[in-house]
Amino acid sequence: MSNAMKVGVIGLGHMGSGIASSLMRAGFDVIVYNRTREKAAPLVAKGAHLAATVSEACRGDAVITMLADDNAVDEVVSGDGGVLASLAVGAIHISSSTIGVSLSADLTQRHAHAGQRFIAAPVFGRPDAAASGKLFVITAGSREAITTAQPLLDAIGQKTFVVSDTPSAANLFKLSGNFLIATVIESLGEAMALIDKGNIDRRLYVDVLTSTLFGAPVYQTYGTLVAERRFEPAGFAASLAQKDIRLALAAGDALHVPLPIASLLRDRFVALAAQGRDHLDWSAISELAAFDAGSRRPQEQGGSKAA
Amino acid sequence: MSNAMKVGVIGLGHMGSGIASSLMRAGFDVIVYNRTREKAAPLVAKGAHLAATVSEACRGDAVITMLADDNAVDEVVSGDGGVLASLAVGAIHISSSTIGVSLSADLTQRHAHAGQRFIAAPVFGRPDAAASGKLFVITAGSREAITTAQPLLDAIGQKTFVVSDTPSAANLFKLSGNFLIATVIESLGEAMALIDKGNIDRRLYVDVLTSTLFGAPVYQTYGTLVAERRFEPAGFAASLAQKDIRLALAAGDALHVPLPIASLLRDRFVALAAQGRDHLDWSAISELAAFDAGSRRPQEQGGSKAA
Amino acid sequence: MSNAMKVGVIGLGHMGSGIASSLMRAGFDVIVYNRTREKAAPLVAKGAHLAATVSEACRGDAVITMLADDNAVDEVVSGDGGVLASLAVGAIHISSSTIGVSLSADLTQRHAHAGQRFIAAPVFGRPDAAASGKLFVITAGSREAITTAQPLLDAIGQKTFVVSDTPSAANLFKLSGNFLIATVIESLGEAMALIDKGNIDRRLYVDVLTSTLFGAPVYQTYGTLVAERRFEPAGFAASLAQKDIRLALAAGDALHVPLPIASLLRDRFVALAAQGRDHLDWSAISELAAFDAGSRRPQEQGGSKAA
Amino acid sequence: MSNAMKVGVIGLGHMGSGIASSLMRAGFDVIVYNRTREKAAPLVAKGAHLAATVSEACRGDAVITMLADDNAVDEVVSGDGGVLASLAVGAIHISSSTIGVSLSADLTQRHAHAGQRFIAAPVFGRPDAAASGKLFVITAGSREAITTAQPLLDAIGQKTFVVSDTPSAANLFKLSGNFLIATVIESLGEAMALIDKGNIDRRLYVDVLTSTLFGAPVYQTYGTLVAERRFEPAGFAASLAQKDIRLALAAGDALHVPLPIASLLRDRFVALAAQGRDHLDWSAISELAAFDAGSRRPQEQGGSKAA
Repeated sequence: MSNAMKVGVIGLGHMGSGIASSLMRAGFDVIVYNRTREKAAPLVAKGAHLAATVSEACRGDAVITMLADDNAVDEVVSGDGGVLASLAVGAIHISSSTIGVSLSADLTQRHAHAGQRFIAAPVFGRPDAAASGKLFVITAGSREAITTAQPLLDAIGQKTFVVSDTPSAANLFKLSGNFLIATVIESLGEAMALIDKGNIDRRLYVDVLTSTLFGAPVYQTYGTLVAERRFEPAGFAASLAQKDIRLALAAGDALHVPLPIASLLRDRFVALAAQGRDHLDWSAISELAAFDAGSRRPQEQGGSKAA
Repeated sequence: MSNAMKVGVIGLGHMGSGIASSLMRAGFDVIVYNRTREKAAPLVAKGAHLAATVSEACRGDAVITMLADDNAVDEVVSGDGGVLASLAVGAIHISSSTIGVSLSADLTQRHAHAGQRFIAAPVFGRPDAAASGKLFVITAGSREAITTAQPLLDAIGQKTFVVSDTPSAANLFKLSGNFLIATVIESLGEAMALIDKGNIDRRLYVDVLTSTLFGAPVYQTYGTLVAERRFEPAGFAASLAQKDIRLALAAGDALHVPLPIASLLRDRFVALAAQGRDHLDWSAISELAAFDAGSRRPQEQGGSKAA
Repeated sequence: MSNAMKVGVIGLGHMGSGIASSLMRAGFDVIVYNRTREKAAPLVAKGAHLAATVSEACRGDAVITMLADDNAVDEVVSGDGGVLASLAVGAIHISSSTIGVSLSADLTQRHAHAGQRFIAAPVFGRPDAAASGKLFVITAGSREAITTAQPLLDAIGQKTFVVSDTPSAANLFKLSGNFLIATVIESLGEAMALIDKGNIDRRLYVDVLTSTLFGAPVYQTYGTLVAERRFEPAGFAASLAQKDIRLALAAGDALHVPLPIASLLRDRFVALAAQGRDHLDWSAISELAAFDAGSRRPQEQGGSKAA
Repeated sequence: MSNAMKVGVIGLGHMGSGIASSLMRAGFDVIVYNRTREKAAPLVAKGAHLAATVSEACRGDAVITMLADDNAVDEVVSGDGGVLASLAVGAIHISSSTIGVSLSADLTQRHAHAGQRFIAAPVFGRPDAAASGKLFVITAGSREAITTAQPLLDAIGQKTFVVSDTPSAANLFKLSGNFLIATVIESLGEAMALIDKGNIDRRLYVDVLTSTLFGAPVYQTYGTLVAERRFEPAGFAASLAQKDIRLALAAGDALHVPLPIASLLRDRFVALAAQGRDHLDWSAISELAAFDAGSRRPQEQGGSKAA
């Protein structure tokens, strides 16, 4: 399969648009679809084909879905004109959305039944990494389907990790990864609530942490956001992170794995939503530890547009 | 002050012995003291002076204490022949033990009252880093006392971070750091309990994490220990970590900072002690999430020496 | 409406069978339906009419559904021959199952649209209370529908409490009540793990508690089960309680209410399921605190039939 | 031993004063001591003897201590003129304060060494119950010492429960009881945050609960306080309850018993203190669940004197 490979991209949010751009830059023939058509315009201007329907986006060798949640994916996949009804026999559905383990298992079966191939390929990275082809791709599925899809994955990511031959394992990996990141955020929130009252400077605190044992991107990125209380614009909205923690807990339910820190994170995200602040970056849950330690809430300081 | 500076080291466990070695290698005149004298022998063989009493170890320009807990420090500092009674006016007590914020504040006052100087200089790093002078030193106290002590800190650490002019802030920093590490361990325990049941290989899981967003020493070190369930020999015993979480919670109490993840960690360490396994490395708390997910306990597998 | 009122009962588990008996004893004309027909036999022997289909059970003035979970209720209500398609205009669907708030709101709308009346009337009490007409009935819905249904509710319960004119409020009440009971169980489990190690007799402990501040049925019933570790036969299976905690958390999600104790209970029920013991009475979660305190698990003692 | 028995009461807060009154009403010869002497005046006016020192209060057959915390008890017991130095051989120290298990064990040893007898006799009940002799007394110690003290315990309580022959077991019982009550408060706080948003009236909610499964004094008393948000005047201050949860956790530490709900309660009490509201009744922690669900804090409503 050459770079003449034809691929659809369904879902043109920040992540999906970046992925489409990276695919085009790598020379693929890209068909784009989004429910609200305006988001497709910049890509069409750069040479993407515009699909008027989901079905039209499924006329290539593969289609990548990058949508907000389980419902959006299920809706695009099912029914007349959906991905399942439209994709050619042998073509590949590459699911890059962060979806639940049970939906992924369900899609695996339904695509197999339709004679199509299905791999899960969720990604780590923010929108800028998607646009520059620097995502980390976590994938799982049959070896031959992944091999076929590899040129596409190479275009969107700096590296691909094959974690299992069961597609849903990649989704479980992604959910566990977001759980680990949210844990880092919460723990930094608690730690900074503590050192704040001990008269240590927050930025110095993060500098020392990341200069010593915690020199990872996750501490650098979120440590800075937390220290500077910079939660807008949202790189990843708290409402989406809340969904992912819910999916991680649901996976824990199904697999019989208690997840006490995830339970605590769940309550944090619910509390943030209760304050009308879940449009902020997910690192905003770090503020809740400070509120519990007696800091005033943002809306009480007159400075927020939150409800 | 030249390398002819004379310094005592009280407490010759793995960390204290390493520190004494590093000081000698840097050319300082080192007097060592340990309650059980055998531990001093290797250092004396290398040229350290042996102090028969705490008081003798306090006859230099500075004394470093590196002891197991608050009680041990308080005992060495107080009473006839203690550090307070023995140190010269103007000499410096460098407290490198991981002790509580309130004891550190107390020592600050008592040394000031005695005309002595006190800085807190807890460290991050395992025993091998102490022996090779590669610790990270977190210090706080008066600027001039730190400046005086700097050559000593340079000898034991690869870098010194001055975080405050209040000594106890360095202790708070250290406790918060151990809290962050324990959180990483717990979250890896929960995540691995989950991916274990999703048929993802544990070592592969850690490899992918540390190749992407989690490329920090803390994830590399503890991710490997957790993935391989390698908890002996203990680099840092769970019983000591339990003490540190207790001290972090006590600091939270005093400063009015709720710390929900620390509370959860507290319960984990208590549970590990209840299994008679707190002699293991603190990364062993990661197994508790697996037990809760239905794995058998080690002692039930017939393979452990635990009670 | 007289005692000649005709009422269907769908779902003949322990609770539904007891309810049907109580209705018959009060003189109502009762039609019973259960998916597996054998369960209807004892009631038919006592004079109940046997419905071969859901639809036949809906030919009276009212129908009571008492089913295991949301899916079972939705299945019975929807589709050809379902309650919605079968019930006469003006007739009442009395939903006594412990279902989620969102399903209840959904049913309210769908029945209104069909010209039928819908009230929620979940109950507190164990099977023996259902059989003897001694349940506590928590109901919500339009005043006139409740007035019409009152003779039926009087037959099954010792008292009816009207808590709102929105049906789903009764379901929320019921879920919150089960949450409170599960909290009592968990707290007794923790307290008994503690006093066990303090050499206080467990039965004496419960006797003193219930003779003083805790003299409520909930402490008497569950205190005894917990003290005696008597978890079989299950009065209310842990697997069902797990479902209810999940529904309470889902209600909290929807209403933006963090529920930290419910989160903790969730993890306990998942852990019990992981041990293969969720067929036991829900009071069995009390053992988990003891396990965490170092007690051996039942299956390790060779005495349980659990997996 | 007759009613002519002579007894000291040390500590004349609300509880101690009530106890002294009840003892006088029963005909005992009562000597009272309080650090600030004014609190003794009403009792002296009713016929109590005033002790100018702790030592003078120890000249009878028994002395009851009813003090705020471990420090206060330790101070009164130790040193020249303390209870240990003053009590006659064979006389009894009845410790009714809510103190920690380790202090109680310590006092047991020290009194035995001094040839005195020691029993723990903490109580359940609010100040009005102390004044009317209606407390519940939980006691532990040697059988003969309890028999000797029984007339005194009969005077202050409506019922005495002997729970062990190890005095500290009574303290453990008391701490576990306060833990159970605080759990009830927290669970009611969470449940009411939920039903508030489901449009169920809070008072109706409590009425239904206490009319059904939760008909115990603890739900009646605290359910009403929580429903009506009536936290002043404090029957039992949150700051004291915080101390008791801390002591329960310390007992769990020592006995190797993880207590996850107690950990959660700990964080609640710390948060209340951080708001400057720990002078309120301990039932005020119930508000924190409502705050997390988006309610405004009292001080933001302009109605509180809190900091």
